[in-house]
Amino acid sequence: MWKLSPRPASISWFRSWGTEMGTLLDDLRGMKRMDPDGMLTHCLELPDQIRAGWQWGLDWRLPARWRNLDGICLLGMGGSAIGADLANGFAGGKLARPLRVNRDYRLPGGLHRRTGILISSYSGNTEETLSAAEAALRRGLPAAAITSGGKLAALARRRRLPLVLIPSGLPPRGAVGYGTFVLMGLLRRLKWIPAIPVPSAAAGLERTIARSLAPAVPLRRNPAKQLARRLAGRIPILYGGADGWEGVTFRWRTQLEENAKTVCFHHIFPEATHNEISGWVHPAPGIRRTAAVFLTDPSVHPRTLKRMRFAARIIRREGAGCLEVGMKGPDRFDRMLRMIALGDFLSVYLAFLYRENPTPVVRVEALKKYLRSGR
Amino acid sequence: MWKLSPRPASISWFRSWGTEMGTLLDDLRGMKRMDPDGMLTHCLELPDQIRAGWQWGLDWRLPARWRNLDGICLLGMGGSAIGADLANGFAGGKLARPLRVNRDYRLPGGLHRRTGILISSYSGNTEETLSAAEAALRRGLPAAAITSGGKLAALARRRRLPLVLIPSGLPPRGAVGYGTFVLMGLLRRLKWIPAIPVPSAAAGLERTIARSLAPAVPLRRNPAKQLARRLAGRIPILYGGADGWEGVTFRWRTQLEENAKTVCFHHIFPEATHNEISGWVHPAPGIRRTAAVFLTDPSVHPRTLKRMRFAARIIRREGAGCLEVGMKGPDRFDRMLRMIALGDFLSVYLAFLYRENPTPVVRVEALKKYLRSGR
Repeated sequence: MWKLSPRPASISWFRSWGTEMGTLLDDLRGMKRMDPDGMLTHCLELPDQIRAGWQWGLDWRLPARWRNLDGICLLGMGGSAIGADLANGFAGGKLARPLRVNRDYRLPGGLHRRTGILISSYSGNTEETLSAAEAALRRGLPAAAITSGGKLAALARRRRLPLVLIPSGLPPRGAVGYGTFVLMGLLRRLKWIPAIPVPSAAAGLERTIARSLAPAVPLRRNPAKQLARRLAGRIPILYGGADGWEGVTFRWRTQLEENAKTVCFHHIFPEATHNEISGWVHPAPGIRRTAAVFLTDPSVHPRTLKRMRFAARIIRREGAGCLEVGMKGPDRFDRMLRMIALGDFLSVYLAFLYRENPTPVVRVEALKKYLRSGR
Repeated sequence: MWKLSPRPASISWFRSWGTEMGTLLDDLRGMKRMDPDGMLTHCLELPDQIRAGWQWGLDWRLPARWRNLDGICLLGMGGSAIGADLANGFAGGKLARPLRVNRDYRLPGGLHRRTGILISSYSGNTEETLSAAEAALRRGLPAAAITSGGKLAALARRRRLPLVLIPSGLPPRGAVGYGTFVLMGLLRRLKWIPAIPVPSAAAGLERTIARSLAPAVPLRRNPAKQLARRLAGRIPILYGGADGWEGVTFRWRTQLEENAKTVCFHHIFPEATHNEISGWVHPAPGIRRTAAVFLTDPSVHPRTLKRMRFAARIIRREGAGCLEVGMKGPDRFDRMLRMIALGDFLSVYLAFLYRENPTPVVRVEALKKYLRSGR
């Protein structure tokens, strides 16, 4: 089922971490203590969120104006925006109309009266999203909202916008299944994507999580734990393929940043072969502190995969860690779901290795306080 | 004119490089020896390219079908794709219709018969671009081409596509002024962007280059050289604002990668405050090998600027180098041009400090050979 690192023997990892780290990730009580706010529970709930969100999306009551759109622009930030990237990835070039995402206080160019505006803020209080939403409403664009409450829920009710209310009380990145699949359900209702058997895929994901990723699965059979051990002590550099894998790659980056509190970067192939591969020369001491992770999949163009493997050889030669991670199985949608779950679990296990509670994002909270004081 | 690093004293740089490096960057003959293929000349030519490209774009003869488009999708890679990002940045939310860029073998979703396809390949032989172009032509989408020759020029002639031929013999990234401003001229012709005084802005840029960035300007008055000295030995992490500065930030990244042969990464604010600032904790030894560069500008939303400065304080505290770079002056378009030129010169000076010839991209060439052999 898993394909992990074609040539692990050629990679020099931080051996000193070895045994102790393995023990830690197989200590169920210890992990529970380090996760008092239950990030692992949100990871385990992903299949349930997918099923629920999909149904809400399909059932969404939309006004007539939404039936004849030229495109959709989602306004959102962080965990409330990534759903648009993931939905684009699932659609994989088969989307009937463009779905854009705008992560800013201001609206992007190119909007017109047949662009649907999807306002997405899990808390309902994201200041960038509310600012852009107000601008969109002033321009009279057709708008709808996805939130768990807050100011956005109040605004949607006041302006009678179509609204999907998702359960509150989660960290926004822990509600990604809801957000992404409300959007997927909507795209299906609009007939912008082909039919997909979401409930059975969610059931398959549930089995994969139970058998391979969950905390009870020991390190020797758990690729998320194995990957966490390999990334500990290094800066992860993630590489995905352009054929719909941008969203998954970016989700891995943000989950590693927020849960594991590690700096993490990414780029997309084949574009990276036109610039980034030239860069893996300097500075050598910095490069030795990195580990490149290639997210590959059979749905990625075969020439792109060749490019990725060429790049991997270069990067390994320069002294960086280097891994290839991919899923097996006949269905692209299934593989993509499993890849998202792998990244989620990996980020939590890496948090444990760094002795971090994965849930709190103290800096984001400190920033919000600072911004409020500075008004 | 330049605003560089508000608190340089608080940053610990690699002092050992100090004197020797300064000497090197003020040694005109030495720099000429290290630049046998003339990358500095291409940097100096940017204003000329801008003027020429703009005029060719305005003069482009387009068929009737191009007068009623819903959007444009540019197909391109590397230096032939960045023009779309930069044009979006210049337009800064004022673009009448969406301008997308597709960096892949395959076409993206959401295209329809009123989406203009701009095929952009400097060499004319970029395999991803030609592959996507063929798919677009099979679907009968309205297409046009920008190239210096190669297979794309032949294809355009055979299919009678509107074509702008730009001068050949440059590295694609050294022709960015042509590519970007052909596109800008086209957008102006379509009335998708407001009128801009490009020739006078190009003249202003020429003066800035001569006074501040050119190799003859000594280190003590040359911010590009100063910046190169500060980045040497560290992994540059670039941060730009969402209000149109994504393209400039990405251009800096790719120029540093291709010219200076340094690994380099980037992210965009305010999005980065929803994920990346949480990551600047681990791994500490890796973080000490990085330098964060914040590209700021008065046109960036004031709340985004506050977020950037908050992030800068965190990053500095964790032991990374930390700099803020911005331009002064009344006009956003002028400042953006100067910022692009600053990145270009910086990347070449950093190449010299690393004792690299900025022009050859041996790995890209090796990859092309490998891909040809593997067909």
